[in-house]
Amino acid sequence: MVARAMGNFALRDLRLVAPRDGWPQKKKIKKGAMQAASGATEILSGARLFPTVEEAAADLHFVLATTARQREMVKTVHLAEDGVFAARSRMASGQKVGILFGPERTGLDNDDISLADAILTFPVNPAFSSVNLAQAVLLVGYEWFKQGEQRSPMAVGEALPAKRETLFAFFAYLEDELGKLRYFGDEDKRAIISRNLRNILHRMELSEQDVRSLRGAVRALVRRRDPA
Amino acid sequence: MVARAMGNFALRDLRLVAPRDGWPQKKKIKKGAMQAASGATEILSGARLFPTVEEAAADLHFVLATTARQREMVKTVHLAEDGVFAARSRMASGQKVGILFGPERTGLDNDDISLADAILTFPVNPAFSSVNLAQAVLLVGYEWFKQGEQRSPMAVGEALPAKRETLFAFFAYLEDELGKLRYFGDEDKRAIISRNLRNILHRMELSEQDVRSLRGAVRALVRRRDPA
Repeated sequence: MVARAMGNFALRDLRLVAPRDGWPQKKKIKKGAMQAASGATEILSGARLFPTVEEAAADLHFVLATTARQREMVKTVHLAEDGVFAARSRMASGQKVGILFGPERTGLDNDDISLADAILTFPVNPAFSSVNLAQAVLLVGYEWFKQGEQRSPMAVGEALPAKRETLFAFFAYLEDELGKLRYFGDEDKRAIISRNLRNILHRMELSEQDVRSLRGAVRALVRRRDPA
Repeated sequence: MVARAMGNFALRDLRLVAPRDGWPQKKKIKKGAMQAASGATEILSGARLFPTVEEAAADLHFVLATTARQREMVKTVHLAEDGVFAARSRMASGQKVGILFGPERTGLDNDDISLADAILTFPVNPAFSSVNLAQAVLLVGYEWFKQGEQRSPMAVGEALPAKRETLFAFFAYLEDELGKLRYFGDEDKRAIISRNLRNILHRMELSEQDVRSLRGAVRALVRRRDPA
């Protein structure tokens, strides 16, 4: 149903992260998926599999995470129309963008969301906000296609943002060094503090050069600490 | 799934026309429908049943028919965003509006569409335009709710359009009188010619008074023919 919703709105590049039942699926399930896809089988058979969100997003410059509920995180929240406009504008300037959807029922967890640059959400009846995965893809696809027909993307700045793999590697490096310094206090606070740090760094919209500079600064601080 | 999509976007009034499997459905099917509705059971249990589109639309002032494919009919076609805006503007002026969706697979037939004031359609990938019923409701619901959050409806003219039952009764009267005059030629052309006439009359946006005037004019012509 996701592939079909993508097909309706001319989206092609499907990336799957650690599907619960593996991929390709067992024949019977796969047949069901192919039937549900109803003509969008090219999208399904071209789907690429990744073990983690980090790897799925590695080559992208901008990632939007879709959520229905409000999150406590300090992160830019776009309504679907504006989020799609931001994403299309970046694409028109040569950036690779991705939209991250959560699994059925649970949705994205906070760690997944902390890897995204911003949140994309829908205006929805607060008393009745459950939208399933294929429906979420359908709504984003609809906005995507509609804007392609109606609205010109805005030119965005020339400097490409860092690829997400560069940024994620910097997150890992920074958090590792901070961990050695017991910066996180109790280890169980590490997840929360790391998410906050990531959200701050996302808001800086760092370029490759920016990440290199920050990494160099952190390395200099680390060397001063451990004059080996 | 339709009720659920309505619930997501705070729509409540569901009208069913001649459901294939009857209504309320047999227990087993009904249970499935209630599960799929997932919390939107109030909408399902409040659904009203009508034998025909004419009766379902009788008390409304404005009806939009949703279609994916292009039709040959000469009828105003709104993209979803504009159609919803037109409908909301009429509602804000006290009119009752309805959106007509076709059955799964076949969609609305031309006779159904000829009863609507205008067509509402989605921008969709022409190579892959099959959108199922619940998805169509979801997309219209999304536009509906979004505009409620973001956009003020426009005030429309003071004069209410005729209720659809007044208009449909006039159609029936006019077509009956024309039939007696063999206006339609071959009886098999009657359907096509009737649809054309209805589409012309829809474009006039007749008020109750307009319909009475036209009906009086037709009656006068008929009496002249049959001086009983």
